[in-house]
Formats: sequence, C-alpha cells, structure tokens
Amino acid sequence: MNAKLEQYARLAVRVGVNIREGQNLVISCPVECAYFARMCATEAYAAGCREVIVNWSDDYLSREKFLKASDDVFDHIPSWQKALLTENAKQGSAFLHIGASDPEKFRGVDPDRLRRNSLAAAELSEYRELSMSNYFPWCIVSVPIPSWARKVFPGLDDEAAMAALWDRIFDAVRICDGGDAVEQWQNHIATLKQRQDKLNALHIKQLHYKNSLGTDLTVELPEGHQWLGGSEVDHTGVEFVANMPTEEVFTAPKKTGVNGVAVASMPLVYNGNIIEDFSLTFEDGRIVAVSAAKGEEFLRAATSMDDGAAFLGEVALVPYDSAIRRAGVLFYNTLFDENASCHFAFGSAYPACVKGGSEMDKEQLAQSGLNSSITHVDFMIGTSDLSITALCEDGSRVPIFADGMFAM
Amino acid sequence: MNAKLEQYARLAVRVGVNIREGQNLVISCPVECAYFARMCATEAYAAGCREVIVNWSDDYLSREKFLKASDDVFDHIPSWQKALLTENAKQGSAFLHIGASDPEKFRGVDPDRLRRNSLAAAELSEYRELSMSNYFPWCIVSVPIPSWARKVFPGLDDEAAMAALWDRIFDAVRICDGGDAVEQWQNHIATLKQRQDKLNALHIKQLHYKNSLGTDLTVELPEGHQWLGGSEVDHTGVEFVANMPTEEVFTAPKKTGVNGVAVASMPLVYNGNIIEDFSLTFEDGRIVAVSAAKGEEFLRAATSMDDGAAFLGEVALVPYDSAIRRAGVLFYNTLFDENASCHFAFGSAYPACVKGGSEMDKEQLAQSGLNSSITHVDFMIGTSDLSITALCEDGSRVPIFADGMFAM
Repeated sequence: MNAKLEQYARLAVRVGVNIREGQNLVISCPVECAYFARMCATEAYAAGCREVIVNWSDDYLSREKFLKASDDVFDHIPSWQKALLTENAKQGSAFLHIGASDPEKFRGVDPDRLRRNSLAAAELSEYRELSMSNYFPWCIVSVPIPSWARKVFPGLDDEAAMAALWDRIFDAVRICDGGDAVEQWQNHIATLKQRQDKLNALHIKQLHYKNSLGTDLTVELPEGHQWLGGSEVDHTGVEFVANMPTEEVFTAPKKTGVNGVAVASMPLVYNGNIIEDFSLTFEDGRIVAVSAAKGEEFLRAATSMDDGAAFLGEVALVPYDSAIRRAGVLFYNTLFDENASCHFAFGSAYPACVKGGSEMDKEQLAQSGLNSSITHVDFMIGTSDLSITALCEDGSRVPIFADGMFAM
Repeated sequence: MNAKLEQYARLAVRVGVNIREGQNLVISCPVECAYFARMCATEAYAAGCREVIVNWSDDYLSREKFLKASDDVFDHIPSWQKALLTENAKQGSAFLHIGASDPEKFRGVDPDRLRRNSLAAAELSEYRELSMSNYFPWCIVSVPIPSWARKVFPGLDDEAAMAALWDRIFDAVRICDGGDAVEQWQNHIATLKQRQDKLNALHIKQLHYKNSLGTDLTVELPEGHQWLGGSEVDHTGVEFVANMPTEEVFTAPKKTGVNGVAVASMPLVYNGNIIEDFSLTFEDGRIVAVSAAKGEEFLRAATSMDDGAAFLGEVALVPYDSAIRRAGVLFYNTLFDENASCHFAFGSAYPACVKGGSEMDKEQLAQSGLNSSITHVDFMIGTSDLSITALCEDGSRVPIFADGMFAM
C-alpha cells in the first residue's frame, strides 16, 4: 500500500503538476488526507520546489458553516483566500487539488446559501481565468475518505469500503504493484494525442449525438477549434496533466450552436448534493428547459448561475470501455465518472480549445464562439448505444462513435 | 472522555475567548487535532458566532519547509497569512489557539532559518500589537499529540502517553467527571483577582528575587503598573481568559530597572528546540550575558531578535504548589510549565500592565517604562526555596514569596 501511495504522490507531483525547480506548489487538501499532502510535499521538495503551501479544507466545518454561520458570510470570499490563490496563480505556482469529499456533504443545506457562495466565487475570477487558460500547471487527484467510500460501496464496512475505493483509484490512475506509473502515463498520453490528431484532421463543423436514453443533440464546433486531452502546457511551455485519471479528448462547442436534448446517463454530484435522472433541452445554445427526478432545484441553480451557465463550454469523448467504466462502480465524483462516459460541461470553455485562445482576451474568445461563465460543470451522457456523427467542413459525414465506442 | 472533551471545547469557547453573537472566531489548529477544532466550532456557532475560520498547521510540513524549502522563503510572511490575521484582528474577531507540537520539531533545522523566520514576523506587527493590547479576545489551549506525549512520558507507549497527557491537561484546566468547569473557573479567577488586589495595594517599587539555584535579581516595576491575571477584557469590555491553564498574576517590569542573574529552573521549548540549564545576566535591564548547557545558540538568537528582545517584558508570580506543579511532570510546553513556576518573559510587555496602557501608542508605552519587541518568550525561574521581597513606595520591605510560596 505504501509503495503504491508513494507512486501516486510521485505521479501527481512529477506528471500531474510537473513541478519545476524554484516553483511554489499550492496543495488544496482535506485535513483528513494530510498524510497524502505530506507525501506530495516531500516529493515536490525533492524535485526542487521552492515552497509548499497547503490550502486545507474540512467537510465537517464546511457543512457547519453552511448550516449555522451568519447569512452574510456567503456573499463574499475572504480576502485572504483570494490573496492565497490569486498571488500564487499570477506567480505561476503549481496547483495540486487533492479531492476527497462526501458526495452529499451539503444535503439539507439552504440551496440559496450554496448558490450565493458559488456566485461569490466571481471574486476569484482572476485566479479562475488563469487556471482555465492554463497559465499555471494544475492537477486534480482524489483520495478516499470513509464518507465517500461508503457511498460508492454501501454494502461494505468502512475499512473494506476504503480498501475497495483505493483499489479502484489505483487502477484508474494506472498504478500497480511493481509497475512504473510514470511510463504508463507517457504511453497513455500518446494514445490520447493520436485520437486528437485524427479528430483535428477531420475539421468537424457539427456533431450529432443520439442514443436510446433520449439524447438527440446537434453540437456545432467553432472554426479553429482544437481537440485536446491527456496533457496540456502552461504559459512557459511546461507539460502538465490536469486530471488524474483522464480518458477524454475534448474541445469547446460553438456557444450558440447547440440544439436538442441531452439526457444524463449518470448522477451528478454538484455542490455536495446529488442530481439524478435529468435532462437538458437546448435552443441555439441556450438551456431552455431542465428536468430532474432528484435535485432539480440544484440543477436549476447551477444552470442559471450567470448567463454563461446556460450554455455548453465543453464537449468530451470517452469510449464506453474506458478503464474507469470497466471498474464497474459509480464513483459519485466527477473526476472519475466523467472519465467513464462521453460528457459535456455547461459553463466556461477552456480558451486553449481554439487556436491561440490562451492568449486571447474575453472579447476575442467570445468572437471565436467560446462560452464564458463563473461556473464549469461536467455531466455525463455516454451510453453503450451512443452514436455520434460528424458533419465535416468538406460536407462529408463521418461516424465518430458507434455503440458507445470510437468508430474512427 | 467525550464528555470531558466537550467540557473542554465549551470552556475554550465560552470562558476562554468568550465568543459574542455575530463575532468571527479564528481557530489556529494542527490538522491532527481537527476533531477538537470541530467541537469548538460547533460550540461557537451555538453561541451565535458569525463564522469560524481555521488557520491550520502541520508539524511535518513545517519541518519539511524549514529543512528543504528555498532559502528566501524565510524572510517574509505570505501576504495571505498576514491578511487572515490582520483583518480579523482589526474586526475584533476572537482568536483561539489550539497548541499541540512536538517540542523538538525543529531539531536539526538551520538556526539562521528559524531566526530569520521569527524576524519576518515583524510583518505581522499590526496583528501582534492588537493582540498584546487585548484589542480582541484570545485564548491558548493545548491538545496532546503523540510526538509531544512521548516526550512528556518517555516510558509509555503512544496510547498510554496520550491518555496520561490528557489526564494532566484536564486536571490543569479544572475539568473533572461530572464537574462544571465553567463554575470552577469563575472561582479560580476570583482567587487570582484577590492576589492582584493585594499586590496592587502594596505599590511596589522593586522586587528582589533570590534562591539557591543562583538567581539573585532586582526588578524595578514602573509607576502605575498593574498586576493582572486570570481574566482580561478586550476593547469592548468583554472578559476573556488568554491562557488555559493560568495560575499566574503578572505585570511588566521597568525596562531599564533589572539587575543581576536569573537562573532557569526548567527547560525552555523555543522554536521547536529545547534550551536547558541556562541563565541570563542583566545590567540596567539589558541581558549582557547568556549561558546554556544545551541550545545556547537558540537562546542567543532569541535574546537578540531585536533590541527589545534583550530586556524583560513580564514578571509573573506562581506559587510552587500550583495545580500544574503538583501534576509532577515537565510538560515541555510553556503554556503549562510557566504555570508551574514563577517566571519572566524577555521581549514585549503587555500594555495593560500599566494603567491606561491599552490606549497608549508605542511612544507613550516606552515613556511608561514598558519594553517592546517582536518577541515575547516566557522562561521559568521558580524553585521551592525562592524568596521575593518587595521594596514599596513607602519604603517598607514586604516578603512576597518565601520558600517558593506566596508569603502575603
């Protein structure tokens, strides 16, 4: 176990954020996972990191705050938090996010408090924009905690559930006994790059999604769009991997070019609540109707956070036989579940999804057709019978997905 | 155990910082003691606290940083830390410090890095001055962690050492099964107030300390000095208890009125290192010689941090039979050890130790005879044969201590 944990810390630091000599590393981490933050810190210092700064969190205290704090605290981000994130972002520090949360940590919390707190994140726009445009390297990894493991494996006791979730996570991030995860990742990234190259060569104008669950959606892609995935580069040209695991290739849709219905194929954990059995209807890009069997109020709040929240910002392709899907569990954690399924995100697009986008200002990005928002929420729509057909610039129609799998 | 912990959290929040409706509470806490921070937060919200903010720390990460980070990180305090402390201080937030540290956490660390890091704390002077002048309520309590418990009880295994240290701490803070710690503290504070009243009525000009360990020291007290102890009041007049436990009555010496030798009667934990068997020689207030059998370099660094570090800032009286002394252990933690023994502090004086001092500016405090510094380090000099004789304004000589105990 300890050898695997060390491989994981090494992977997060050396491949994930790919820390450079003299660079700061900001680790955001729940206090319960301090042991893993410590391993990552030791690995980072060994790689020449200037200073490790930890931005700690705690589910219990967050929940207490949302339930019991004064009502006015949810409309602002404390200036010290803004300073921590923004100053490090502007310096090009690396950001490692260690995710570990009870999927329903905010069940029963006043939805208006959650909504206003998400809106207040607008005060972090400078940090957020630098992150979205890959100015600095960032990486999200996950570590089990009992409340989460119990949700994934409801039939097991805490210890067995934790062990089972660790197994699934190690598999998902390509860590095995005696293996070399770093080498595994280099091969994996090369595979994803081949997929992107094929997709980019098609010069797609529009994608048509269809499956038996009810999804029937056309998604236009902007001129100059680029399929990305696996690794990205920060503003200094250093390669990093933003998500571990990652199985997707993705790009941005044309903001106003989405029409039809997208039906979710998996639950969505949003703001510490679960949204289930939901669908979104689009007209000229805008979400004009939402429905959900559970958590509809959270879905409504999420898609009306600001004007951009009602438009798509990401289109991602993941084959139905991905390693994450084969794990055979629902993770109740978007980092994993989105890598088991084709997905979209509503909210902001990643600027790098159009050529030269990382250097564009807001207006130029909008002119390129990209959506912007203070939010970015992935939701899963892939099924075993999903078909995706591309209409290309040369007028040809090319099957991209058939029966849930790449057809190219 | 849990009932005692709840009493402890209640005591820290209701008596220690005495949280008010609508007030923020800043808890500084090691990540290992998150369970206790959570209990304090719940208690604070029940008392109407506006928001609980936790300033987390971690011995392991601090040590890694001092050993491995780039050399330039020790000369500055990150601006986000300054913002967190200073903004809350200026708002009059309550500050609860949960102390739990390996006494030798920085053994082997480059002393110059520790020294420069302490000097950098000058950037927190606004927070520090508001704290020293009791602008906001603050309280220090302690919680065991294994590395500390092992040092106190080297013969016991971790579990037994932790249990033994908890027992000693609960005794020290007057928590017992089925008791009412809040009521106990009200009685205790009343006893300390009676001592102060007696001392204040004497109008002492000078104290003469003498014992068989070699201490032979005269300490002048400034005109208008006040003996304090037990509880204090913040700028809004709300009572709080800055240390739990607290057994002392204290005041400030006249900066330039200290002459002779003070010999330490207990080891001193300073900056994660232990200083043992040491003495300080004073001439007209200034420390002109230091010697220590162990850790002399840390003592030299501490007393030369700035000019004020070489002068006394606190004179505190604790009888040799205090509850903490009777616990019969050396805690390797100043919060406890200083309450087992008469002590001094070199460095800054508390402004409230002269009448009207909390409203004085730096210059007025200096004119009153009070020392100022970026540091304040308590060290213990009490023994079973310590005598302290007061020379009063009216020329009379009054024995204050005889054989280590109050003689008034």
